[in-house]
Order: sequence, then structure tokens, then C-alpha cells
Amino acid sequence: MHTLGEIAKLVNAELVGDGELKITSLASIDCAKSDQLSYVVSEKYREQLSSTQASAVIISKSLQKFCNTNALIVDDVYLAFAQITHLFKHKVTHTNGIHASANTNNATVAPNCCIGKQVSIGTDTTIGANTVIEDNTTIGANCTIGSNISILQGTIIGNNVVVESGAVIGSEGFGNARDKYKRWHSIAHLGNVVIGDDVNIGANTAIDRGTLENTYINRGVRLDNLVHIAHNVTIGEDTAIAACTGIAGSTRIGKRCMIGGMVGVVGHLNICDDVVVNAKSTVDKNITISGVYTGIMPLMPHKKWQIVGVWLTKLDKITQYLNIKLTHLKGK
Amino acid sequence: MHTLGEIAKLVNAELVGDGELKITSLASIDCAKSDQLSYVVSEKYREQLSSTQASAVIISKSLQKFCNTNALIVDDVYLAFAQITHLFKHKVTHTNGIHASANTNNATVAPNCCIGKQVSIGTDTTIGANTVIEDNTTIGANCTIGSNISILQGTIIGNNVVVESGAVIGSEGFGNARDKYKRWHSIAHLGNVVIGDDVNIGANTAIDRGTLENTYINRGVRLDNLVHIAHNVTIGEDTAIAACTGIAGSTRIGKRCMIGGMVGVVGHLNICDDVVVNAKSTVDKNITISGVYTGIMPLMPHKKWQIVGVWLTKLDKITQYLNIKLTHLKGK
Amino acid sequence: MHTLGEIAKLVNAELVGDGELKITSLASIDCAKSDQLSYVVSEKYREQLSSTQASAVIISKSLQKFCNTNALIVDDVYLAFAQITHLFKHKVTHTNGIHASANTNNATVAPNCCIGKQVSIGTDTTIGANTVIEDNTTIGANCTIGSNISILQGTIIGNNVVVESGAVIGSEGFGNARDKYKRWHSIAHLGNVVIGDDVNIGANTAIDRGTLENTYINRGVRLDNLVHIAHNVTIGEDTAIAACTGIAGSTRIGKRCMIGGMVGVVGHLNICDDVVVNAKSTVDKNITISGVYTGIMPLMPHKKWQIVGVWLTKLDKITQYLNIKLTHLKGK
Repeated sequence: MHTLGEIAKLVNAELVGDGELKITSLASIDCAKSDQLSYVVSEKYREQLSSTQASAVIISKSLQKFCNTNALIVDDVYLAFAQITHLFKHKVTHTNGIHASANTNNATVAPNCCIGKQVSIGTDTTIGANTVIEDNTTIGANCTIGSNISILQGTIIGNNVVVESGAVIGSEGFGNARDKYKRWHSIAHLGNVVIGDDVNIGANTAIDRGTLENTYINRGVRLDNLVHIAHNVTIGEDTAIAACTGIAGSTRIGKRCMIGGMVGVVGHLNICDDVVVNAKSTVDKNITISGVYTGIMPLMPHKKWQIVGVWLTKLDKITQYLNIKLTHLKGK
Repeated sequence: MHTLGEIAKLVNAELVGDGELKITSLASIDCAKSDQLSYVVSEKYREQLSSTQASAVIISKSLQKFCNTNALIVDDVYLAFAQITHLFKHKVTHTNGIHASANTNNATVAPNCCIGKQVSIGTDTTIGANTVIEDNTTIGANCTIGSNISILQGTIIGNNVVVESGAVIGSEGFGNARDKYKRWHSIAHLGNVVIGDDVNIGANTAIDRGTLENTYINRGVRLDNLVHIAHNVTIGEDTAIAACTGIAGSTRIGKRCMIGGMVGVVGHLNICDDVVVNAKSTVDKNITISGVYTGIMPLMPHKKWQIVGVWLTKLDKITQYLNIKLTHLKGK
Repeated sequence: MHTLGEIAKLVNAELVGDGELKITSLASIDCAKSDQLSYVVSEKYREQLSSTQASAVIISKSLQKFCNTNALIVDDVYLAFAQITHLFKHKVTHTNGIHASANTNNATVAPNCCIGKQVSIGTDTTIGANTVIEDNTTIGANCTIGSNISILQGTIIGNNVVVESGAVIGSEGFGNARDKYKRWHSIAHLGNVVIGDDVNIGANTAIDRGTLENTYINRGVRLDNLVHIAHNVTIGEDTAIAACTGIAGSTRIGKRCMIGGMVGVVGHLNICDDVVVNAKSTVDKNITISGVYTGIMPLMPHKKWQIVGVWLTKLDKITQYLNIKLTHLKGK
């Protein structure tokens, strides 16, 4: 808990309002409630700004006129937000063995595990050797957690979940603010990872925690080995994602999707239910219609590729040479 | 060991034959021997079904007429198979330090390692700190196993093998059966990983165990970092696979191949000996002739890409507009 | 330390010069100094060979005439070099807990960590549970090192560095020499990993040590999860690399670059400062002009892809059919 005045000082903000106000946590402008601090980076969100329940907001001078609550006025809102997140990061403690406050029921906990404060583990769950489970994590019943796994603070895992060895759950998201010197400032990710029942997570897969809200891996999801799930992603129920695939930040994937191996899905996309994406595809736009999608280059002998590749990079010139306009291709 | 009757009850199968029959293990229809249970999912395998040595098979009603042995009749054969695999999964135990039944010869075992039951480690082998080696694993002589590695039950590793830190060997394969509600049911993978002599395995690489038979990494193979090898894959002798590449299930790669970085090879393919696949390629068909192959898009400035990309997606219309038929291109 | 005579014997080399000469280490032909052994694989480097400061060089007969120092004459220079590297590899020791010779200042070291000989850890640094830090590693002040991490011998890490769980730093590079039987012989990588201040490294990311010189991750760099950094790579200050990307050996990436997720950068390239590479691109040539680059295939419905894909592989024939020459496209 910090006062708005303390926070203003940290980021050299102009304080407009009550410096004694106690800020309990941070939240996005839509979700923010009383005693929370939020932020708005552009005029696009002027209406959410005007109607927010947040007790205070970080904004630029130009947005002040849309603000009806306490404000921290700064030049670079996103940078100030990044710096402030670190004030609210829960400090990890380190436990040797199982902390006295942890409730492991009848779970089997293998040697060299570290089980932190207030951890709860359900009945008949097994935790493999050398696995680390940080403070305030909840794991359901009948789960099989492998060895050399790190499950970081505040993670919530349902029942009948299988996590293969080497997985990392709850790592920091790849969120950074860039200052005027083009240097990066990390955002402390304050959300958690929430995993539903009957989920399987593959070996050496990494799932990042959310920035302010959570990352969700919903019931019945299957994640293969070496999969990357970024911050604030939601994976819908019964969706399967094959090995080496990466889902970038804040993307939402629907239910019953099948995403092939080594697929890259860029950030902030929405993929609807029942979509199949073939292996190695790049998903660079929303998918709103169920079906099978592909974005790859066919395999061919290298000698042939050397010829084809040249023409590929000249396609625009070829069509120009042929005086083909897009309109010519209408309805073709 | 379970009786056929118990198994039938588990999956609500119609039992045709001897319910008292003792089933020792599962096997594919080709490899199955007496006292083993197998399964056939389609009429394509009717001949193997008729001639199988298996003491019993899981089949659908429609295949019963081709069956000359005990049968479990179910609606969804693959789903029933998936559920039955869990009956035969060897339960992992957890050992603190080195189990009394393990034979580590003069191997150097670093602190915080867990070495399970009946593990055998050859002379002059080194096991790094915090590495977990599960029950019934065999590791040869003169191996260098790094730290924070998980080598899971039943793995067989030859001599002079190097495994870099963070690798996982013997994780469950990504095999799941989908029920009529489109929910996934895991297959318990009962095969092992078998690694030949003189193999090197990179950091944070993951190798899945086989479903019923084994996954094979043959003599002299080189695997770089963050490589994914799926269940039932075979990598031929002296083949090198660069970082971030993924080989999907049941694919067989020949000898002396060189697979570049971030290549994706889809499942159930055969790649012949002495094939070179350039970095980032997608291999989506069998390769039967040695040579160099590529399947990628050339790099270009984004502005150029925006123009070229449009035409790429219109290639079919361009050729239609030009009234070019594939036949026109014969012999060109 | 080995005499040149001992080394000659190891690789069956013809020794030209002083067999009693003491060789302290290996170095590349440009960097080599007195008491060091170097190697030259082709006539391309004849001038560096003639002017090298190395006390001895590994060369083929054909290069002897350009050599003004002690020489080991072999048929396969690169193979001989690979075999010799193992003579100079520092043997790792294993420590239970914190070695007496380590200086951990007031750092917090969690349970089950192994901190090797002569390790130095700066003030206010935190080391997570089950993390292994090998001999002669230096970690600066105010760093946050996660759990289940392996930081291998001789690594140098600056101040304010964050390493997420499961990362491996200092693994062997993927350098192998192939003999006449097409078998691989590993090169023992003798360089280290040097990480500057204010660097963040993601979960399950792997960074290989250099072959003879070091791998450099410079100040302010951000690496996401599951990133692969190969041997001898240099990542320039304030460059950010998103998840699942791989940078192949000896490539140099400039300052303030932004490399998207699942990008593959091939080896021995130079990428200049302030380059943006879009997600999933393949970088297969040097980039000498700052800007935004892309090399991917647009996503499309699979049915459309099946049509477009056919034409893609016939582009050369289409242009031939149309009798379009590259010259026709000049200036288009």
C-alpha cells in the first residue's frame, strides 16, 4: 500500500488531487475500482477515463480535461506505469522444504522440492523432485507435477492437471516501456496464471503471468513441449497447441481449436472457436470464421527454390509489367 | 497385469472371448505377441487384424468379422485405447539421493540429484547438480550429464553421451484421443527413449517417450538447444539437428542428415539419408532423394513485403486472368 | 598447459618446430598471442597466417609456405582443432551448497542451490531455489536470478540483471567437425558468456558460450522466453528479442533492434543498429540499413492456400511462359 503522493514522487509526476490517498493496487482502466490506480495512454480511451471507478489515473497533460478523479500527470504515461508496477510486486520468499503454512494434504512431495508460504496442494497430487512452488500457489487434486518445474507465486491450478518436467509457470511477461533514450524499463507483472481442470502442459513449456489481470489456460487444454504462452493470453477450453508454438501477448484463442506445431500467433488477436491452424503457420490477423488455415511456403528442392525465390520478390513488378491491376482480378 | 474382463469393464466394451485372460501389456497390431492387447482403428488394417499374434484386440463392431482372437468391441477404438493405456503406466517412485538398488559404479553424482530404483550408470560418467534420473534408467560409460536435467523412467542412454543442462528426456508424448464432446483424453505413453552412443543433446531440449514402442536417437546424433523430438520419432545415425527445430510424432529421419534451425517436420514422414534441410524450412512431405531442400520466404524490406504479399495471395487469380493453365507450363 | 609435442601426438600431426613449446590456450588467428595455438582452414586467411602472433598453428600441408611459426600439419585442420579443444576444457567441479571460496556478500541464496568455486555474487542479489552456479562465475549486484537455472562455469553477469526460471547460460555451442566417415566430433567451447548490466533473460532461454572468444549480451538487452542464442553471438545494447527466436552462431545484432517472436537469424550475419524484424521472419542476409523487415507468408484459408501454393511453386515457369525476363522488370 502506497500513498498517491509517494507514487507521484517516484515518477516525478504532477499530482492533481489527494496525495494522502491510499492506493492498494493497479488495474486497467476498464476494471479499476476504488483505491486502485490506473493509466490511460491515448485519447482513444477518453470515455473509459471519464467514467473510470479508479481512485486515480496516470495520464498526460492533454488528457487531463477528460479526467474526473485524482491524477498523476506525466510526460510518458507507459514509462511511469512501468516504474510504478514494481512498487506493488509481491516479494518472493524462499522456503527450505515445505513451509509450515502450506497445506499439502496427502500429496506426495518428492525430495528437494521447495513449497512456499500458504501453498495449497490437493489430495492425491504428486510433485516431482527438485520442483519449486512459490508462495500463495494453489494446486488442485489428482495432479501430476513433474520434476525440475518452477511454479511461481500466486499460480492457480485446477484438478487432474499434468505438468511435464522443466515447465515454468508464472514467469514475468515480456512487457517493457522504452524511454526517450530507447532504453527498456521492465513492467513488473502483477497478474497470475490460472489453469483450469484437466489441462496438460508439456516439457520445458513457459507460461507468463498477466500484467494486471491473469493469463488463462482453460479446462481441458493441451499444451505440447516448448510452447510459449505470453502474458494476458487466454486459451479456450479443449484447445490443443502443438510443440514449439508461441502465442504472443493478450491474444485470445477460442475453444476446441487445434494449433499446429511451430505456429506463431501475434499479439492482441482474437481466434474464434473451432479453428485449425496448420503447423508452421503465421497467424497475423484475427480469425472470425471456423475452419482450417495455413500460412507457409511449400517445400521444394533448394535449386528450384533459388529460381522461384527470385520471382517471388518480383511479383509486384511482374504484375506491373503485365499491367495487371487488382481490379482486373475482381471476381476471378 | 489385468484381466481382459477388468479392461472391458473400464471402457464399457462388449467382451467377446475369455474375460479371465491375463493381459501383460499393450502393443501395436504388427508387433503384438501372446498375452498382449492391441487395437485397430480402421479397415485399412484388416489383414494385420486377421493375422495378429495379440491375445486380444480393441475394435469396432464393423471389424469383428476380421478378428480371430479375443475382442473388446467399442464405439470409439482410439478413445478406449487411450483410457486403457493408463492401466499399464509404470508408477514413478521418488528417491532422496541415490536409491539403494541403483548401481552408479564410480560415476560422479553431484549434490541434490535423485537417482531412482534400479538405475545403472556406467563408469566415469558425471551427473550434474539437481538432475533427476527416474527408475529403471540406464546410462552408459563416460557420459556428461549436466544440471537441472530430468531423465524419466526407463530411458536407455549409451556411452560417451553429452546432455546439456535443462534437457528433458522421456516426457509424455502429445497423443490424445478426442471424445464426442471434443474433449481430449491423454494417452499414457508406455514406450521409452533409447539413445545410442556418442550422442549430444542440447540445453532445454525435450525428447518424448514412445507410445507403445520407443523413440530412438541413434549413434552419433547431434541435437542443438531447444529442439523438440516427439513420440516414436527415429533420428538416424550421425544426423545433426540445429536449434529450435521440431520433429513431429512417428517421423523417421535418415542417417547423416543436416536439419537447420527452426525447421518444422510434420508427423509420420520419412526423410531419407543424406538430406540437408535449410534453416526455417517446413517439411510437409516425404523426402526420398538425397539433396538440399528449402521452404522459406525471402527476407525483404517491410514496405516491399506489403506490396509483394498482396500479389502472393492473388497468384491463382493472376494466372486465371492470364488464362494460364498448368498444362501451359508443362516442360517449361 | 600442454607441450606442442603432446598436442601433435594427440592428432597425429606432423610437428614443424619446437615440440617442447608450452601452449597455454587456443585462440583465433586474428586474436592469438604468444604461447597460444591457433588454426587456419583455408588459403583465404593466408595473410593472417603469415602475420599471426600465435606461437603455433594447425594447418594443412598446402598452407605451410605461408607459415612463419611452429606448425602442426594435418589433413583435416578443423577436425584436429575440434579434438585439441578438449585438452583445454576447464573441468567442472560439483559443490554441495556454497563453496568456501565463493563470495556471496549479502546475497540471498535459496535452498538447494549449488554455488561453485571462486563464484562472486554482488550485494542485494537473489538466487532462486535449485539453481546451479558453476565455478568462476561472477554475478553483479541487485540481480534477480530465478529457480531451476543453470549458470555454467566462467559466466560473467553485470548488475541489475533478471534471469527467469529454467534458463541455461553457458551451455556448449553447437560446433562439430565432421570426419571422412561423416561422423561428428564436438568442439569443446572454451569461451564464456558475458552479460552486461540491466539485461533481462526469459524463462527456459538458452545461451551458448563462445568457442574461443565469448558470447556477448550487452547492456539493456531484453530476451523473452525460449530464445536460443548460439556461440559467439553478440547482441547489441538495448536490443529486444521476442520469444522462440533463434540467433545462429557468430551473428552480430546491433543496438536498439527489435526482433519479433519466432524469428530465425542464420549464422555469421551482421544486423545493423535500429532494425525491426517482424515476427516469424527468416533473416538470411546481412541488414545494413535500419528499417522494418519481414520475411513471411500471409495467412489464408487452407483451401485458398492449396490453390495459391501450386502457383507459387510454378512462378519461374509462369514468367518463362510469359517470356518475362528480369531485365523486363528493371525500374518497374
